[in-house]
Amino acid sequence: MNKDRIVLAHGGGGILTRELVEKIIVPSIGGDKSTLPDAAPVAGGGGFFFTTDSFVVKPIFFEGGDIGSLSVHGTINDLAVSGAEPLALSLSLILEEGLEIEILKKVLESAGRTARECNVKIITGDTKVVSRGEADELFINTAGIGVGRIDLEDSAISEGDRVILSGPIAEHGIAVMSQRQGIDLDTKIRSDSASLWPFVRALLDADIEIHKMRDPTRGGLAATLVELSDDFSVTTEIEEAKIPIRPGVRGACEMLGLDPLTVANEGKLVAFVASSDADRAVDILKGVPGGGEAAVIGTVFPRRAFSVYLKTPYGGDRVIDMTYGEELPRIC
Amino acid sequence: MNKDRIVLAHGGGGILTRELVEKIIVPSIGGDKSTLPDAAPVAGGGGFFFTTDSFVVKPIFFEGGDIGSLSVHGTINDLAVSGAEPLALSLSLILEEGLEIEILKKVLESAGRTARECNVKIITGDTKVVSRGEADELFINTAGIGVGRIDLEDSAISEGDRVILSGPIAEHGIAVMSQRQGIDLDTKIRSDSASLWPFVRALLDADIEIHKMRDPTRGGLAATLVELSDDFSVTTEIEEAKIPIRPGVRGACEMLGLDPLTVANEGKLVAFVASSDADRAVDILKGVPGGGEAAVIGTVFPRRAFSVYLKTPYGGDRVIDMTYGEELPRIC
Repeated sequence: MNKDRIVLAHGGGGILTRELVEKIIVPSIGGDKSTLPDAAPVAGGGGFFFTTDSFVVKPIFFEGGDIGSLSVHGTINDLAVSGAEPLALSLSLILEEGLEIEILKKVLESAGRTARECNVKIITGDTKVVSRGEADELFINTAGIGVGRIDLEDSAISEGDRVILSGPIAEHGIAVMSQRQGIDLDTKIRSDSASLWPFVRALLDADIEIHKMRDPTRGGLAATLVELSDDFSVTTEIEEAKIPIRPGVRGACEMLGLDPLTVANEGKLVAFVASSDADRAVDILKGVPGGGEAAVIGTVFPRRAFSVYLKTPYGGDRVIDMTYGEELPRIC
Repeated sequence: MNKDRIVLAHGGGGILTRELVEKIIVPSIGGDKSTLPDAAPVAGGGGFFFTTDSFVVKPIFFEGGDIGSLSVHGTINDLAVSGAEPLALSLSLILEEGLEIEILKKVLESAGRTARECNVKIITGDTKVVSRGEADELFINTAGIGVGRIDLEDSAISEGDRVILSGPIAEHGIAVMSQRQGIDLDTKIRSDSASLWPFVRALLDADIEIHKMRDPTRGGLAATLVELSDDFSVTTEIEEAKIPIRPGVRGACEMLGLDPLTVANEGKLVAFVASSDADRAVDILKGVPGGGEAAVIGTVFPRRAFSVYLKTPYGGDRVIDMTYGEELPRIC
């Protein structure tokens, strides 16, 4: 691979994405941290958190959502997993000349409806137009402001912590991918695109001892667990039998040759919590709409050779890696 | 023109942009206002302001700046003209597969350096990659948070107000345009890309009675004055002889067939101030680096047939209109 140029894999949420951010983007900007977080507290900002996300999903409309609803949920979720209650969004459009205005309307109606459902306001915006062939239909950036309910910045993951997952995995990636490829699945797979704030709020209201939260989007559950385990020099063991996954999704992954652990989610919460609170946390998530299949899926151990191991139902251990790069371009 | 599709002119900052925002974008989102402002106060946000801007300027590098510095200045300026001190920025990238990493580095170094010069922090980010031909090199979105120093939301422009301009116009648009077209001008025209916060801060520190501020970007000084005059049902008269413009820029505009009043600026402040404070405001701007040519350029009158008139040195009046659409695509 030509190391001097951007490749699709730089956007895949895997090892190459991390390298691009840590070795090129952050040092070039001259930031004082090793990475630019998905959401960050605003210094001097009275407990406010700030986040941004650009959305380039293709196709624009998919089962269970579209680029409009996704761009609202995605930014809300970056705030939620930082422990911040989403308050206000910006919405900035890059439109390709020739885009049908009816498509734009449909996308924006979806974004507006989603924002209202999630009780956040879209308060500022911008629109740019580029010539035909200089963008692909439309791209959306949303940035978001939230009010910090808990400070997880200095919180750490450590031995004994349990890993909680709010529901079945890999649905967003498979929904987008099957639509894009025109694959006719027996059962329609719908994206799980949804706000995570109701889950997070319920955990916070119950004073669950949360150490870290993430939404496993690009790179899937695997990338999220590897990244966090590496950050805190621990090893996480997850149990295959505990990870909820719908049969149709499993079948589609097999057909497409994808490991569901590496496929994007857009409405799932991963939380590392104190062991003593794990079962209670799962009960709480089960009480939130969409959380019926919440489960404790793993445990944190002292660091071993690899970051994440999957325990199979047959007693075996499989090493789980981040993908190197892009299995599914333009998934979000 | 096909009314059912996006055309380049929708992005030009003129009449079509305004129509797109007011008739399509805002109603589709279902906002409770008639427009989405460039920067908005965050309800429940303790005096914070929020803004967003996407940058698609072509070429990426131009005399006096690049897409990195522009994306920092542009968002800072949206906050500044709302009366908010810029505090933190997000930076989100959409990269085209094949982009040279050296180019990305140069752009980000420029963004980082500009942010430090302006005393704002880039605290959160995102990166997406699309296939070759699905974007043009790179697009940047920056959103920004600022602390409101003054509330101009309910402030109005009225008869007798004077119009202040911080310096010579049309430099950004001509710098980008001449570079893009490969036009070899006798004197190199540099973009005026710069932070407006030092100007705004100086006016606020001196308690100048400001009624509205704007940065006349896409659509130029003409669009800004027409829009504000329409919003408050007044007519603004400006004096041609008072509007600073460098001879090289004037010459380039003539060569390119452009009215300098409609060409984009990226470092100029337009302020409507109380008549009694106008001369003092200009003196203050002259004391700020880059403000040496600040001037009172016009006066607000009761509404006449048109929004803006230009008084020529020969005693004539010329009606100034917004451009209909895009004279200069991808200027910012």
